[in-house]
Amino acid sequence: MKNIVVVGLGEMGASLAKILNKEPKNQVIGVDINEKSLSYAKDHGIVFGAASNLVNVASHADVIILATPVTYIEEMIRSLSQLSLKKEVIVTDTGSTKRDIMDVAEAVLTPKNIHFVGGHAMAGTHRSGVEWANEKLYQDVPYFLIPSSISNARRLQEILEPIAAKFMPISVKKHDELMAVISDIPHIMSFALMNTATNQLGDSTTFGQYVAGGFKDMTRIAESDPKLWTDVLLSNKEAILTSQSLIIEQLQLFSQAIEDNDASTLMTLISSAQESRKNLLLK
Amino acid sequence: MKNIVVVGLGEMGASLAKILNKEPKNQVIGVDINEKSLSYAKDHGIVFGAASNLVNVASHADVIILATPVTYIEEMIRSLSQLSLKKEVIVTDTGSTKRDIMDVAEAVLTPKNIHFVGGHAMAGTHRSGVEWANEKLYQDVPYFLIPSSISNARRLQEILEPIAAKFMPISVKKHDELMAVISDIPHIMSFALMNTATNQLGDSTTFGQYVAGGFKDMTRIAESDPKLWTDVLLSNKEAILTSQSLIIEQLQLFSQAIEDNDASTLMTLISSAQESRKNLLLK
Repeated sequence: MKNIVVVGLGEMGASLAKILNKEPKNQVIGVDINEKSLSYAKDHGIVFGAASNLVNVASHADVIILATPVTYIEEMIRSLSQLSLKKEVIVTDTGSTKRDIMDVAEAVLTPKNIHFVGGHAMAGTHRSGVEWANEKLYQDVPYFLIPSSISNARRLQEILEPIAAKFMPISVKKHDELMAVISDIPHIMSFALMNTATNQLGDSTTFGQYVAGGFKDMTRIAESDPKLWTDVLLSNKEAILTSQSLIIEQLQLFSQAIEDNDASTLMTLISSAQESRKNLLLK
Repeated sequence: MKNIVVVGLGEMGASLAKILNKEPKNQVIGVDINEKSLSYAKDHGIVFGAASNLVNVASHADVIILATPVTYIEEMIRSLSQLSLKKEVIVTDTGSTKRDIMDVAEAVLTPKNIHFVGGHAMAGTHRSGVEWANEKLYQDVPYFLIPSSISNARRLQEILEPIAAKFMPISVKKHDELMAVISDIPHIMSFALMNTATNQLGDSTTFGQYVAGGFKDMTRIAESDPKLWTDVLLSNKEAILTSQSLIIEQLQLFSQAIEDNDASTLMTLISSAQESRKNLLLK
């Protein structure tokens, strides 16, 4: 019998709990600060047991999954390092950025021989809350594992196997670079476009009537939550700053070509973008 | 009876022709270099008559609408200036950028007392060709008029009234700035993001499996036609370069705030983008 503790019963954590709790070999204990979420989860069979505090249940756990918002994960890792845990326990998380979390885990868990594997699934919707627990949420979704050791990653992968994700070991550097390019920078560009348009043209209600599909697409994610994105952007600082410089350089190539009336350079730049975009969704 | 000449029977021109030709008071003559387009237009009642050359039909026209690709419009304005036209004729166009066209019209038509009104409808799809003539294409669509004089713009608007567009007089400067911000810059950003992602992560087939809705939205218009967009970007040089600098400044504000761990500035930047995006489609 595996004793699995899931901390944070939001959409991501509750979905994990629900799938894993269905396995006869598992017993999932949910931890959340919200009492309503806990009783909902118990009532709906999402968890076997519930606790309002990790400290009370950590010592029996074979696996501890930290699925809270990213800003609380480091704090929980620190508190885990103060507890006496099972010798073979694996601690993992679901945070979307990894460097800071891996650094803290290495600093406080590794010296105590507590095994930590960073995790990040490219899953999740705009919904939040335990009532969105979804058994298909992770199906065929890339799920990155940042292993402290290969054997720990394999053990975790075996336990998580019922969620049917596509597990992929990756280095923390590669992971954070990838997230910067495919998620963080697009958000910054979308925010920047919306702000610049407003600065140049005035209130968006006045120019909104003119915009076509392109502008709407490019600014859709500018409606994302400010607090969440402030946290995300600050937690992936190094990789974002590198990619931002590269984006600005690329924009300057366009400006220079336009300034020089250099049709041939523009054709090359646009053609390579077009080609890459065409290939993006081929696989 | 108004004699209306429409040059270029693509989606835009053919739709104009079809609507205007239905009015009993109009007779529309289509001009196109493609013989098949001309006979299709005649066979389907899109035009009353057809000609392969503007020179043959210009002298009888009350209105001449230049609806060819933007790169041919200036050439046609120059050739019109060499012809003897009706005294009250109005020449207009459908080009998406206006400064260069207005400059040429002022240089060669104004001295001959030929009235020119720049036109640009925010209509059109990805389709091309006379067979896409669509009587609803302009309905409730913003249609910018850049008047040489208000009275000419009013006369043109009366003639175009059956297309049921939302006509809006605008200065050439305001028009080109608006196009730079809502259309040209979003395209450049999309091209730049796609190129930077490929430069950083390698072939797009390798990272395509990881991208979510945000990245897909932000790069959708990167698949646009390179030749067309090279022409568009070069034809709106001044306004684009101004907006590009402002976008780069805005991106640098984000980089600086991230570098300084300045959560409060990030919150402000993201919140204003979110607010503007929420208001964009209110009206």
